Amino acid sequence: MNALPPGSVIGILGGGQLGRMLAMAAARLGLQVSIYSDHSGPAFDVASSHVVGAFDDLEKISAWAATVDVVTYEFENVPLAAATAAASLKPLRPGPRALEVAQDRLVEKSFIRDLGIPVAPFAAIDSAADIPAALEKLGSPAILKTRRLGYDGKGQARLSQRDEAERAFKEIGEAPAILEGHVSFDGEVSVLLVRGLDKTWAYYDIPDNHHKNGILSTSSVPGPLSKELSDNAAAMALKIAEALDYVGVLAVEMFWSKSDETAPLVVNEIAPRVHNSGHWTMDACPIGQFENHIRAVAGWPIGTTARHSDAEMTNLIGSDADHWHELAAENGVIVHLYGKNEARPGRKMGHANRLKPLSHGMSHNEKD
Amino acid sequence: MNALPPGSVIGILGGGQLGRMLAMAAARLGLQVSIYSDHSGPAFDVASSHVVGAFDDLEKISAWAATVDVVTYEFENVPLAAATAAASLKPLRPGPRALEVAQDRLVEKSFIRDLGIPVAPFAAIDSAADIPAALEKLGSPAILKTRRLGYDGKGQARLSQRDEAERAFKEIGEAPAILEGHVSFDGEVSVLLVRGLDKTWAYYDIPDNHHKNGILSTSSVPGPLSKELSDNAAAMALKIAEALDYVGVLAVEMFWSKSDETAPLVVNEIAPRVHNSGHWTMDACPIGQFENHIRAVAGWPIGTTARHSDAEMTNLIGSDADHWHELAAENGVIVHLYGKNEARPGRKMGHANRLKPLSHGMSHNEKD
Repeated sequence: MNALPPGSVIGILGGGQLGRMLAMAAARLGLQVSIYSDHSGPAFDVASSHVVGAFDDLEKISAWAATVDVVTYEFENVPLAAATAAASLKPLRPGPRALEVAQDRLVEKSFIRDLGIPVAPFAAIDSAADIPAALEKLGSPAILKTRRLGYDGKGQARLSQRDEAERAFKEIGEAPAILEGHVSFDGEVSVLLVRGLDKTWAYYDIPDNHHKNGILSTSSVPGPLSKELSDNAAAMALKIAEALDYVGVLAVEMFWSKSDETAPLVVNEIAPRVHNSGHWTMDACPIGQFENHIRAVAGWPIGTTARHSDAEMTNLIGSDADHWHELAAENGVIVHLYGKNEARPGRKMGHANRLKPLSHGMSHNEKD
Repeated sequence: MNALPPGSVIGILGGGQLGRMLAMAAARLGLQVSIYSDHSGPAFDVASSHVVGAFDDLEKISAWAATVDVVTYEFENVPLAAATAAASLKPLRPGPRALEVAQDRLVEKSFIRDLGIPVAPFAAIDSAADIPAALEKLGSPAILKTRRLGYDGKGQARLSQRDEAERAFKEIGEAPAILEGHVSFDGEVSVLLVRGLDKTWAYYDIPDNHHKNGILSTSSVPGPLSKELSDNAAAMALKIAEALDYVGVLAVEMFWSKSDETAPLVVNEIAPRVHNSGHWTMDACPIGQFENHIRAVAGWPIGTTARHSDAEMTNLIGSDADHWHELAAENGVIVHLYGKNEARPGRKMGHANRLKPLSHGMSHNEKD
């Protein structure tokens, strides 16, 4: 395979905390990192170089891409034109198709459904007038979500009755949207799958995810799924990855249900990147999601996804991070702070990993 | 305590691989790093800022020190004047006394002996003419070592007979030296002790160290010492740390012997910094030596030194690093490469950590 040797330059589109942790993982492997972002961000501190430029400045992006050996991205809302400009010069991993799918909820849901994988029932909404019929079809309550640029619960509105259509559509900014039918579930999990350039793949133990105010709060392993359900979840994620000819870490969020025997797992959404629900892998696994993403995009052999410890990751949101001293004093807590100056409400400032000895002898996805 | 909040700047004198790994540990805690070094080095890639300047350019060092919140160093041969200049502006941790002691083998050995801690018998050598009498006193064979600037077996010459005095003294460059008597031992170990600004301390499990051609080759835990000997070794290291009013990670290399009941442990040398024999802590412990050094110098609570795995660290020296692809493909091996371009013979290019499940239920120095 064409593995990039140590000293090669990984180009990362985006300079947030995911870029920061990717940059540190690359550095551990002796790889250099260059960040392209439209504003100064936490990744700049740990990258060999960075360029500040608009994501629609294709000339600047091309000039930057010429200086790196491979391009990846840390957020799925990189404008497609920017990614394509980079991809015309250097390998883009994961490829532009993954971005295209992940950027638009309608495309994403259709794509996954067409693979025969369960998703929540949905309908395209172009105006408030589309909502009553869709609500009729999908049942109530339902959630209206913008097709683009929603994250952490933003760009979403719940509604139960047809006379709420106007209000809900206004709430999401009157943007093209989808209406999603209600899915009853017992919990939320995510598959963190890594697929190499050589098409080998592996997945981390599937964590149990809890949200607060629409933002991930905790992820912990072992999670709630049986071995059989875990295998099914991984098979779904793999199907998606293969259909996208994916290289890197792919996160697939799912709802799971004890009682629904026909569809115990329903895919909620995918993220074509390292994912917040995989931050526990940094400390509970010999090789975490960040290193495995870098290994994949650099064409290196992917590393083991086994873990040596049970773990709970807690996000530090906004003022949570003010308690850094208490957290640092708590025995066995591993504190990660992203170097952001301003602790705005809802802003991800860091996370804390708590490790415990393995509750069974060995991580269940250990291969040998 | 005066813990430096996230966003504060840790100044590091020296830009080698130890500085690089310190910088990444600091970044994980949301701390910024500024490197001062007389040449571009591996740490520059992962530090928020760096200054290239001579270590005897005290004006430049002072200007740099004014921009940081605390100063530490990654090598013990920082000229004392440089460290003192920095220390006149900002806290220097560990302090200048640790440098003074560690930079001169005669001062170091005398200091440790005066604490009542066993060291190899030694004598000061100022010229070849001093050697015969010293050899008579210490017995043969003996090792002639320069007082200053020796590392990885450099600046050393063995001799057995008085007529080798001239040859040996020439070999080490006719520099002020000490002659060390032979110590018979069964193995080499090192205590990696961390002491906080609040004087709390902890030590990592004591590794078994093996050298090749005078350079550390492997360090592994669990090491060979009994619980009792480990406690004794740690007590010696603590005595040294307290005498130096030490803040940070201190490495104390020791010879150990099964048969010598009066002195089963003899201190070989100290390093007032993170140490190569502690690189396994990066992956086998929730909080490794690099983070604990940063915590200590930043006035944070020191973290647990317990480990969750057995481990063997193997240095990648010179062309060893050419095998990066094989190493990366080996299951469960964690590869660390330092981003050095040129793999000169004897140059430390990286290390590989191999983890295994704990051979006993819990790391023996786990406190709670």
